[in-house]
Amino acid sequence: MSGSTGSDGAGGDMTGSALAVTVPADLAQISPADERAADPAWDDAVAAIIRAGWRMDQRGWVPATAGNLSVRLADGRIAVTRSGGHKGFLTPDGVIEVTADGRPVVPGQRPSAETFLHCQIYEHFPDAGAVLHGHSVASTVLSMIATDSAIHLEDYEVLKVFEGQTTHKTRLAVPIFANDQNIPRLSRSVALYLDEMKAGYVIRGHGVYVWGPDMDTALARLEGLEFLLSCEAERRRLVSTTASRDVT
Amino acid sequence: MSGSTGSDGAGGDMTGSALAVTVPADLAQISPADERAADPAWDDAVAAIIRAGWRMDQRGWVPATAGNLSVRLADGRIAVTRSGGHKGFLTPDGVIEVTADGRPVVPGQRPSAETFLHCQIYEHFPDAGAVLHGHSVASTVLSMIATDSAIHLEDYEVLKVFEGQTTHKTRLAVPIFANDQNIPRLSRSVALYLDEMKAGYVIRGHGVYVWGPDMDTALARLEGLEFLLSCEAERRRLVSTTASRDVT
Amino acid sequence: MSGSTGSDGAGGDMTGSALAVTVPADLAQISPADERAADPAWDDAVAAIIRAGWRMDQRGWVPATAGNLSVRLADGRIAVTRSGGHKGFLTPDGVIEVTADGRPVVPGQRPSAETFLHCQIYEHFPDAGAVLHGHSVASTVLSMIATDSAIHLEDYEVLKVFEGQTTHKTRLAVPIFANDQNIPRLSRSVALYLDEMKAGYVIRGHGVYVWGPDMDTALARLEGLEFLLSCEAERRRLVSTTASRDVT
Amino acid sequence: MSGSTGSDGAGGDMTGSALAVTVPADLAQISPADERAADPAWDDAVAAIIRAGWRMDQRGWVPATAGNLSVRLADGRIAVTRSGGHKGFLTPDGVIEVTADGRPVVPGQRPSAETFLHCQIYEHFPDAGAVLHGHSVASTVLSMIATDSAIHLEDYEVLKVFEGQTTHKTRLAVPIFANDQNIPRLSRSVALYLDEMKAGYVIRGHGVYVWGPDMDTALARLEGLEFLLSCEAERRRLVSTTASRDVT
Repeated sequence: MSGSTGSDGAGGDMTGSALAVTVPADLAQISPADERAADPAWDDAVAAIIRAGWRMDQRGWVPATAGNLSVRLADGRIAVTRSGGHKGFLTPDGVIEVTADGRPVVPGQRPSAETFLHCQIYEHFPDAGAVLHGHSVASTVLSMIATDSAIHLEDYEVLKVFEGQTTHKTRLAVPIFANDQNIPRLSRSVALYLDEMKAGYVIRGHGVYVWGPDMDTALARLEGLEFLLSCEAERRRLVSTTASRDVT
Repeated sequence: MSGSTGSDGAGGDMTGSALAVTVPADLAQISPADERAADPAWDDAVAAIIRAGWRMDQRGWVPATAGNLSVRLADGRIAVTRSGGHKGFLTPDGVIEVTADGRPVVPGQRPSAETFLHCQIYEHFPDAGAVLHGHSVASTVLSMIATDSAIHLEDYEVLKVFEGQTTHKTRLAVPIFANDQNIPRLSRSVALYLDEMKAGYVIRGHGVYVWGPDMDTALARLEGLEFLLSCEAERRRLVSTTASRDVT
Repeated sequence: MSGSTGSDGAGGDMTGSALAVTVPADLAQISPADERAADPAWDDAVAAIIRAGWRMDQRGWVPATAGNLSVRLADGRIAVTRSGGHKGFLTPDGVIEVTADGRPVVPGQRPSAETFLHCQIYEHFPDAGAVLHGHSVASTVLSMIATDSAIHLEDYEVLKVFEGQTTHKTRLAVPIFANDQNIPRLSRSVALYLDEMKAGYVIRGHGVYVWGPDMDTALARLEGLEFLLSCEAERRRLVSTTASRDVT
Repeated sequence: MSGSTGSDGAGGDMTGSALAVTVPADLAQISPADERAADPAWDDAVAAIIRAGWRMDQRGWVPATAGNLSVRLADGRIAVTRSGGHKGFLTPDGVIEVTADGRPVVPGQRPSAETFLHCQIYEHFPDAGAVLHGHSVASTVLSMIATDSAIHLEDYEVLKVFEGQTTHKTRLAVPIFANDQNIPRLSRSVALYLDEMKAGYVIRGHGVYVWGPDMDTALARLEGLEFLLSCEAERRRLVSTTASRDVT
């Protein structure tokens, strides 16, 4: 790996959740550092997004053209995936720059439809450096059958992956918002609860949003949240099973 | 990658669902461009089929010798997988040319048994450029237990991957046809509903058919449909669970 | 790939179920053809076993040190996996020769405990060329909860992968035998039913046995059987779900 | 592979459960034998941990920054994963040395939070050479819904992977301990039962601990235990299903 491999490079975080994703074999050739030597910070952001997309695809969280990923650079620029395209097979061309309010810097380029939700997170959390949005079976289905406005996660050791959590003896609410093709309207609903979200949020029948100070941390939180949602789904199946057996 | 890598090459679609599948390590050597330099369009079609088969196998949708894949070239030729053989480990030899009515161009070659269903789609939809047929656990089982003649998909964000869909607030019917070893007879049942199929169709206990203007789009729709069928199966398990708990 | 890569080599079967498994990256170096040039047929058998073990591990069918694999060469020699060792990471050293009644040709070598079940199949079916035994969650659990002495598979298109099957309109019985650490005794129970087994057999709480004229066909049948057992498990979960909903 | 690839190298165990994990492509370059030629035993331990972490990640057992892994060298030194960091993408820098009571040899380095549980196992079992702790959905959920203080595994062939087991006709208890952020206190509960644990133990809502004389054996036992927990979860779902069907 060269200096273009991004946030998991030299001087890495000793205390945090460094998640260095294995690079697809052809990443080196699609992202030649020498051609874009003028902008290594951008290259780093793009490489982090490509690898995170690859990882999310391995886990089945970006089916079809679903999902979107972004990074905010130290200088404030925002790199986000283009609209359309498969997030498991991104190339540098699939990542574009947008302004703080989500408009493409290069006129005519088209960012992911939900870019504004990424920008909202960056504006609200000054230390947010990466945002991930994925679609899993667990998040889709649990949000669609929920009778409450949140999924509650409790007593799991993995809850400690979220900001400020030091024990499994906690109960985190992952709020569920109604899906809405009108993204600005959806973002206004989200705005009311952003401060209380320790583990991200879910859009009903759609997927999760998580973030972190850097891509490694955002990916670790995404893995943690998806693991817990899978546990929650399995728990409901097995609890039902046990209950039925007691009854008969 | 050389110029033989097909539809995800230079000048790629900016707006559509470009799904560039990672190439198996030995694809370059099994498909040497120099030997077939006279027919790059055919090479592209073959490479697209090989990579799509590899992708479908990674997802578990082509067990044993199941599934078949085809591409219609710009000049109208149809490339389809041979009968038999594992679709996750295709080589260029595993793809042959058939006429518009499904007969092998080289006498004695044997195309997939369901080739006629591919041809039917190409004939009916002038802009169809790729057809995929896979066998997943979800499509097999949901079609076998269905009491209706279709699987209905509703309120999922991923529904937007299908042609003409712009919102999750929709309800798409994926028709289910009785399985039949007599493919011409089966195709006559399918013919009656082809115009209404936004998300492909299912043959009971057998699998799904999807298509698109090119292989990337067809693969994205296949991933979308399989994701939604997995959600639908999970939803039924969890809804039942919840119901049982309410009762006890 | 060199001439040592086995049964999917030149002159491959056009009509059958050729399943050419991708070679792990280090197979070339662990099986240098030049060192064993005197016995290419043995090398082919070993390579076929190594690749099949790798494939079975990808699917989760050889956990821990479970499973065993064998090939009968054209000259009658039998190559089988050693006792112990992980079947997903085999090397040529992990495959040894046994006699027709299952004894190691090199004194002191220890074949898999169930080698005798492989030999029984080779003796009973003169055209059997490969035998596979794997442990999946589906085969383990379905056999443990069965109230009948067989798992019945019916109406699935994939049933056509088994010998002599030309339609989904069939009902195949996969017999279940009680597990027994006394392999000769277990083999006597199996012997009574061998002629009727179109899709292999299951040992309760233990796993499946399948075979074919060559490794590609045996692997295709294993994939087919495991796919169908997964369908069967899912079907029972969903049918129960539907029934419960009707009741409430 | 060079001499730095560890416990599955030359002179390997013929009788035991050799599980040689495929090396990630970039392992050679991140662990250059020439730089640390002075300490090949340490290099071997680190390589074994890196590969085991990679394998556990492939199976989904180390989500986010969960899990920890250790090896005890022949000279008594203990190599363990650092606190934080993703266990599927370890580098040699992610493994540090601790004393027999779990303190870092290099002041300021921070071992995994549960290092003391590893040390407890090494102290109690003089022949233990590797300890693995992973988080799976099955172990997390089964331990959270258990009404008993152990998960009982019975009649499974794979039970033979555990120490001293020669038949499926056995019933092993995998004890469940309440999760506790106070690791010394948790270890005192574990201490009372260590001698009876043939198949490791589970911390509720947290994960499993397994060990063995070397990393290959520890990994085989981890795979065996996780396979059996997956079977147990599936069994409960299907038994419930069958019961419901009988009732209706």
